[in-house]
Amino acid sequence: MKKLINQSENVVKDALAGMEIIHADLLRVDHANQIIVRADGPIQGKVGVISGGGSGHEPMHGGFVGYGMLDAACPGEVFTSPVPDQMLAATRAVDGGAGVLHIVKNYTGDVLNFEMAAELAAAEGIEVASVVTNDDVAVQDSLYTAGRRGVGVTVLLEKIVGGLAETQAPLAAVANLARRVNDQGRSMGMALTSCTVPAAGKPTFELGEDEMEIGIGIHGEPGRRRVKLASAAEITELLANPIIDDLGLKSGEQVLAFVNGMGGTPLIELYIVANELAKILHGRDIKIARSLVGSYITSLEMAGCSITLLRLDDELIRYWDAPVHTPALRWGR
Amino acid sequence: MKKLINQSENVVKDALAGMEIIHADLLRVDHANQIIVRADGPIQGKVGVISGGGSGHEPMHGGFVGYGMLDAACPGEVFTSPVPDQMLAATRAVDGGAGVLHIVKNYTGDVLNFEMAAELAAAEGIEVASVVTNDDVAVQDSLYTAGRRGVGVTVLLEKIVGGLAETQAPLAAVANLARRVNDQGRSMGMALTSCTVPAAGKPTFELGEDEMEIGIGIHGEPGRRRVKLASAAEITELLANPIIDDLGLKSGEQVLAFVNGMGGTPLIELYIVANELAKILHGRDIKIARSLVGSYITSLEMAGCSITLLRLDDELIRYWDAPVHTPALRWGR
Repeated sequence: MKKLINQSENVVKDALAGMEIIHADLLRVDHANQIIVRADGPIQGKVGVISGGGSGHEPMHGGFVGYGMLDAACPGEVFTSPVPDQMLAATRAVDGGAGVLHIVKNYTGDVLNFEMAAELAAAEGIEVASVVTNDDVAVQDSLYTAGRRGVGVTVLLEKIVGGLAETQAPLAAVANLARRVNDQGRSMGMALTSCTVPAAGKPTFELGEDEMEIGIGIHGEPGRRRVKLASAAEITELLANPIIDDLGLKSGEQVLAFVNGMGGTPLIELYIVANELAKILHGRDIKIARSLVGSYITSLEMAGCSITLLRLDDELIRYWDAPVHTPALRWGR
Repeated sequence: MKKLINQSENVVKDALAGMEIIHADLLRVDHANQIIVRADGPIQGKVGVISGGGSGHEPMHGGFVGYGMLDAACPGEVFTSPVPDQMLAATRAVDGGAGVLHIVKNYTGDVLNFEMAAELAAAEGIEVASVVTNDDVAVQDSLYTAGRRGVGVTVLLEKIVGGLAETQAPLAAVANLARRVNDQGRSMGMALTSCTVPAAGKPTFELGEDEMEIGIGIHGEPGRRRVKLASAAEITELLANPIIDDLGLKSGEQVLAFVNGMGGTPLIELYIVANELAKILHGRDIKIARSLVGSYITSLEMAGCSITLLRLDDELIRYWDAPVHTPALRWGR
């Protein structure tokens, strides 16, 4: 196992310590509760927005804590759900009197633990709304998940909903927008290589030298099928077409196109995929009105990519464009 | 070779096409000359700032084209110097009457070709100044280079000097600041794995399962030594101490700490290295006043990292903090 780590059991703890030092202007880490919170929170009258999930997907979610996005993140151990106590501590920490939104990726452990935390918070008098993202069109049920998995849309949703929350909109409006973003987005991913969970010390799965997995999950869960290596053009077709069809995107519509790296894929390859995606969308007369290219929801050092398309309207564009200042996404400030 | 590419000979061309579509608000690509130029340039009265080098180091340099950083970038083929014609075309394209600064990483091909381009531009009446970065403390001479190699400082220099150029400072002042940044910064890198140049189709070098290379160059050039795998704490010592000694950093000084990923290393590992670096600097009473953590000067999909330390003063901080709007670095706008 070749990794820049110390003891494998301290990977998350060490990385959080690094984040806290490097981004002291934006966030602080509550080490006792293992949560990352905005340095300037809680903000009175603002809906608190939190998310969380297993580590190993950086910068998601800790890298999205800051102005205009998340108020707190709950990192579990690598590829392991955070526990309800973390989520409850985060909910308390960000409560500014206007309630708290839980953004939950659809994995059974995450969903159950966030539900329990929401009940505990409600018992303390904190109003909580939850939205579950389930944008992965690759498979219906899978390892760790009933229904579709929550993947790339989560990043876009956290940005857009965080933008609305910053206007002191009420909890119901923030939750409604979150559901709308989830409904309007779809994703699919693929892997060229596996990844190695530090505590396991060996690759999560095996892929032959001439194979790739289409429809992979962000923890290496099996996808639609394992096939022979193909060109970037062919791979982009395999990912984009099911998304476009599932979303029912039509000629004349506009989207946010998100080409995401899985952690071990260099940026030069993501731009090649972006170029192929642009050709496909152009061919269907769908306009790329906004875009994001980079590694934002990853699977440790896995090589591969995912594509997310989000159908845009004026409201989504407004809050996507709104200022944001987090470790991983920043503009307008 | 597992890559998200089409034909290996089209890697750079396809990636440039993707960049142009995704970042149409910031830049345009002159495909005939294979250069990337600011969409809003040339800017009258502003020194044009250009750089370039082999591709495969993305986001450097094309990802740094935009307000407050580069006016143009000249990408060569992967790990191959751009040609003088590209540099001359870029120089012409960004000339707003105040002269042009060439930022050149110290590799023999880059240096020779930029020199030739500067002479050709001068013959056309364009005033050109050049600065060569040579911040890599790992080795003196190496494959492709006489003297020290230019690496991570180049990223910081492009940002800082771009900030000054935006104030319409004269060419001599911009060039002087560039030399000062280069003098005040040092870097060193390491690799856990090799990388594969698309046209070669096989790894540039071989590393055993329990080996790493300390002092690696950004094209896989040999470093100081090949040693057994070690912890993040030990690796960070091996990189940071030679930098600190070479710079002569003293108790009470302040630095910009740049922890850079080589392309295949996930962010979670870079924060672990950042944490170790912070401990070392804290132990020497050196303050991290600014920082940058991410993959900004890469070697395709190589796993590994580099550390750059830049001694800061008020002027360097002012132009580091100045607004920037490029694909890869953005703040204040």
